[in-house]
Amino acid sequence: MDVKQVLCMSKGDGEHSYARTSTHTQKIATLAKPTIASAVDSLLEEGFFPCQLLNVADLGCASGPTVATFMSAVIDSVRKKCARSNRPMPEFQFYLNDLPGNDFNTLFKSLANFARDYESLSCFVMGAPGSFHGRLFPRNCLHLAHASYSVNWLSQVPNLTSEEGSPLNKGRIYISKTSPGVVKEAYLAQFRADFSTFLKSHGEEMVNDGRLVLILNGREDKDFASIDSYFLWEKLGEAIADLVSEGFVEEEKLDTLNVPYYTAASEEVRSIVDEEGSFRIEHMEIMKIDRAWPGEDPHSRGRKAASHARSVTGSIISHHLGEGIMDKLYGEKLPILIGDDLAKERRMGVSIVVVLKKHVP
Amino acid sequence: MDVKQVLCMSKGDGEHSYARTSTHTQKIATLAKPTIASAVDSLLEEGFFPCQLLNVADLGCASGPTVATFMSAVIDSVRKKCARSNRPMPEFQFYLNDLPGNDFNTLFKSLANFARDYESLSCFVMGAPGSFHGRLFPRNCLHLAHASYSVNWLSQVPNLTSEEGSPLNKGRIYISKTSPGVVKEAYLAQFRADFSTFLKSHGEEMVNDGRLVLILNGREDKDFASIDSYFLWEKLGEAIADLVSEGFVEEEKLDTLNVPYYTAASEEVRSIVDEEGSFRIEHMEIMKIDRAWPGEDPHSRGRKAASHARSVTGSIISHHLGEGIMDKLYGEKLPILIGDDLAKERRMGVSIVVVLKKHVP
Repeated sequence: MDVKQVLCMSKGDGEHSYARTSTHTQKIATLAKPTIASAVDSLLEEGFFPCQLLNVADLGCASGPTVATFMSAVIDSVRKKCARSNRPMPEFQFYLNDLPGNDFNTLFKSLANFARDYESLSCFVMGAPGSFHGRLFPRNCLHLAHASYSVNWLSQVPNLTSEEGSPLNKGRIYISKTSPGVVKEAYLAQFRADFSTFLKSHGEEMVNDGRLVLILNGREDKDFASIDSYFLWEKLGEAIADLVSEGFVEEEKLDTLNVPYYTAASEEVRSIVDEEGSFRIEHMEIMKIDRAWPGEDPHSRGRKAASHARSVTGSIISHHLGEGIMDKLYGEKLPILIGDDLAKERRMGVSIVVVLKKHVP
Repeated sequence: MDVKQVLCMSKGDGEHSYARTSTHTQKIATLAKPTIASAVDSLLEEGFFPCQLLNVADLGCASGPTVATFMSAVIDSVRKKCARSNRPMPEFQFYLNDLPGNDFNTLFKSLANFARDYESLSCFVMGAPGSFHGRLFPRNCLHLAHASYSVNWLSQVPNLTSEEGSPLNKGRIYISKTSPGVVKEAYLAQFRADFSTFLKSHGEEMVNDGRLVLILNGREDKDFASIDSYFLWEKLGEAIADLVSEGFVEEEKLDTLNVPYYTAASEEVRSIVDEEGSFRIEHMEIMKIDRAWPGEDPHSRGRKAASHARSVTGSIISHHLGEGIMDKLYGEKLPILIGDDLAKERRMGVSIVVVLKKHVP
């Protein structure tokens, strides 16, 4: 599977689109606002005034409402800072990045309201098609970059086939409790390689002292003991296993399906950043959000979570299993499995928020 | 009619798409290569070395193959210049601009081959959604900008209603031989206002000595005596008039339809540039291309020209007349009218090519 060709959040703005179902991501974008504000604050404190232009990138932005939330957070923070320091507002150039297969048409149209809200400012929005697993922008041009739930996506599925050619992660689509150690090692090695390249590439693009704000789906426990860190993939794997046992999907299809995604532990993130060397960690925190919503029926939540899961993972899964099984998988199996689980257990989504400062040795 | 909301070249890459039918535009893009090359040459001669980054904009790029032709022309010219001067290649940032309703998805996907051809270079491509009748980029950032058949599109239809509220350009959709003088004046006034704003806005975005290369659908004669300068609109007007006489379109619909487009004379372009003052004219030439193609049956050409006309003018015309009449208009009437005319007369398409140099007083 060529991840660059296959992966995309679901297009348009209909009922099952990423734009309409990404409420969890939107929640985190709102929670991350103070972190963005303090990154902007410390960025502007360090000799950036007089600042005429702020170049800002959103890496792996998809086509949902979080893009406008992020841009507003940046502009509002800069506005407050300028008011406090009695400085004129700079011009803004926002680069919105995602793969060329992303729905940029929907993204651009969705920004009409944003443009109206900020029309008194010089704020220029660009789409930057390409993979963030490599260079996207000229050298030394970015002041601030942001990647929310992007770095989790690997550039490729790690090799999970034994030397004899048999699948090493049978019956699972991601690391699971029963996955052999070699599976965890292969995933971590791929993440290490991809995240290092990410840091190096975008480090080259940043000005000295530029800030990179990352939000990752992560985990607290070192050894994948808690299902919290891979809840969605676990339930999706279970749903596919059900379809195998019911004869709708061939077993071999499940055994050879592994997703190009990794949920890192904060210590892994820290060690890769330190080792790679382009950035220093300025701030790191863990955010936990209950997967169940207060007062909401777990099965209603299950249906919404499955719909969002489809908008995010659908392109990858249908590439492997075929479009024909998608409705059964995401519309019937997955909502029930998620709902049943949430009715029994409390499940926390774990996010790692990191602010990195460009480091010139 | 809100031109910004309505106007777009037809989407996708199917048979009737702009991407597939824009052969005339593509021909001109190829003919304009030497002009681009000499603009790049003189730009780089003026102290731009050592140049680390070249910011280049294509204003009103649509979603056809001309975008890649233009980018290749720029890169190849820079490469030759760097080889001759024994200098390293700069990085390139190409900003591709069109209205937010443009098909950026198709545009970005179409550039996969381009990216492969130039993957050894640091060449970054951005989409810049917005109207070129205003600012699109930060101040002092562009080295080279290019607008091919863009500036012809006006920001709005000039007011062509008398004080009593009756239409001034009855039976026509653009300036025609029989149009009263007030129609020509209103169109020229709108073009003067729009083109001045265009020059001022993009002048602010350019570095000193930056170059702006414009290709316009134009005319040689001062008084619209020759149909050459408005051939397509004239034939489209005739086709709609036929549909009125056959009862398919209400007469009032035709009388109130006027297109937001202007074909300028070279003297008009010159006088507006001089008056506005942001640029000096470095080079101006007229290119004439036979609308009939050698060896091709005029009616076959008529069908192709009508199909291209639909991809360019369809959004505007269907907004006014309704989608229902489009097949009859562009598929039946227009190809015959164009074909019959080309079988009788030689019709030349007139293009004005201008190279402007940013002028700091």
